[in-house]
Amino acid sequence: MIDVAGFSFNKLVIFGVGLIGGSLARALRERGDVAGARTVIGVGRSPASTARALELGVIDGTAALSDDAALSAALAGADLVLLAAPVAQTQPLLERIAPFLDPDTIVTDAGSTKSDVVAAARAARGDRSRQFVPGHPIAGRESSGVDAALPDLYVSRNVVLCALPENRPDTVERVAAMWRATGAAVHAMTPAQHDRVFASVSHLPHLLSFALVEQILNSPDAALKFSFAAGGFRDFTRIAASSPEMWRDICVANRAALLDELDGYTAVLAQLRAAVEAADGAALEAVFARSREARTEWQEQRAALTAAPDATK
Amino acid sequence: MIDVAGFSFNKLVIFGVGLIGGSLARALRERGDVAGARTVIGVGRSPASTARALELGVIDGTAALSDDAALSAALAGADLVLLAAPVAQTQPLLERIAPFLDPDTIVTDAGSTKSDVVAAARAARGDRSRQFVPGHPIAGRESSGVDAALPDLYVSRNVVLCALPENRPDTVERVAAMWRATGAAVHAMTPAQHDRVFASVSHLPHLLSFALVEQILNSPDAALKFSFAAGGFRDFTRIAASSPEMWRDICVANRAALLDELDGYTAVLAQLRAAVEAADGAALEAVFARSREARTEWQEQRAALTAAPDATK
Repeated sequence: MIDVAGFSFNKLVIFGVGLIGGSLARALRERGDVAGARTVIGVGRSPASTARALELGVIDGTAALSDDAALSAALAGADLVLLAAPVAQTQPLLERIAPFLDPDTIVTDAGSTKSDVVAAARAARGDRSRQFVPGHPIAGRESSGVDAALPDLYVSRNVVLCALPENRPDTVERVAAMWRATGAAVHAMTPAQHDRVFASVSHLPHLLSFALVEQILNSPDAALKFSFAAGGFRDFTRIAASSPEMWRDICVANRAALLDELDGYTAVLAQLRAAVEAADGAALEAVFARSREARTEWQEQRAALTAAPDATK
Repeated sequence: MIDVAGFSFNKLVIFGVGLIGGSLARALRERGDVAGARTVIGVGRSPASTARALELGVIDGTAALSDDAALSAALAGADLVLLAAPVAQTQPLLERIAPFLDPDTIVTDAGSTKSDVVAAARAARGDRSRQFVPGHPIAGRESSGVDAALPDLYVSRNVVLCALPENRPDTVERVAAMWRATGAAVHAMTPAQHDRVFASVSHLPHLLSFALVEQILNSPDAALKFSFAAGGFRDFTRIAASSPEMWRDICVANRAALLDELDGYTAVLAQLRAAVEAADGAALEAVFARSREARTEWQEQRAALTAAPDATK
């Protein structure tokens, strides 16, 4: 048994041992400040992924989701369950595991959207939703799968917890302590606030990046265009190599906030289009200069935070 | 005097000694395969930049654009003149230097747009446009200025030459030989083809990236959004830190092709918007999966080219 900031974690069960779930397991097992024996059980849709996680030593055991007895054994006595699967699976997963959960087991998730996850938790768990703490570690990468998992993935990264009114404070604090033990900085937001922020800085850019590659693919000279695409294209479209399934789920789950942001963006594009058509260099330069300044300032602040990890705590 | 693939370059005059012009000078002076004595004169708008280029040893001398005698001395006997200034300055620069150019001096440019540059060359030089070879080295970085110049910037990069019907083949070949000496692969396109390709893979992504930062800036919770922006935002908006003046000029100069691409993009976004609104996960996933596959293939092909530089020649 290991203490993390006064909370003990004996047994952790992770649904979806990929980049996010695997990195949490590795962080809790391998980082110096929290290292030690504990049991981590991985449950996944793909037997090959959980087998690989076992092979890598990321988890100690697995259970098949379809096997009642194995699932029951896996969940018995679990301190914490992490759902790290595409967000559309939150409700079915919660419904599937509900009969096997101990009353004291805390469940949290790592989904990129939160309003839908809260609705799923309440639908699936009723008044047991007080044991469910919605969370979102901000640590996406275009690579995925347990082979991409890193013990240091969460160092100096942000984790947002959207505590529910029905959560007890020590329940929330326990999940927060776990994330802090990985090196992350934990922040509180409401689900609506979370969904609006991430629609803007994450979900919309992903949609825009996928859209650019789609547009080039649809053009008659796609091969020529790709062959001359360079560094700007590379960075702009890095996120277009992200998981189609995960981003499908996010776009659907967070569609209200995403549509708001997309409509705002389309309005900005319409203004820029008018300036381009009118050859209004001054209007274009004003927007570009403002954007450049903000982007440069953002980069500098981010670099300062990374250089001084204490500042992010 | 140094031979580059059978062509001798005694004197090179560069207008705009920043990243692009400075890297060409450094490549021709410092790379093993073409190293040796030669004279490079830099002319810039800012005395501080040319002074810095002199201090760094990137150029041997400077001339003020406004000084007839100095400009005449700088251009006398020049084998080659490179214009590496924002594209809107092409015509005024060509008009300014025309009286001082030797008949045999070849002029080329490094502008990101080509149809407008061709029109500028013909307007400024009349039938002397046969000495002007439009070019575009594909080597942008978000950093700029002569301090960012690198001797290896062009290694395995592409350079597009849009030869004019009035150019003599050996005139074009001489410019091509110069770029090959920097390690670049030289390709031929028509100006219209060039402008369409780069509107798609470069100019549009820049506009889209600036637009995202502008949209966030305009929102009431901009500070919160920026503070949770992470890796996806970082890469998507890296090019929003590019030079506002340069991108203003590019957007205006290439506005016909850029508007075509922007309209095509807006149509793709409208389709995706409809799919998001209808919660049509299958339609979204189909687009995302196609984009991911194309982006991944592009990355692999690019990595293969970089690993085998001979393949790019």
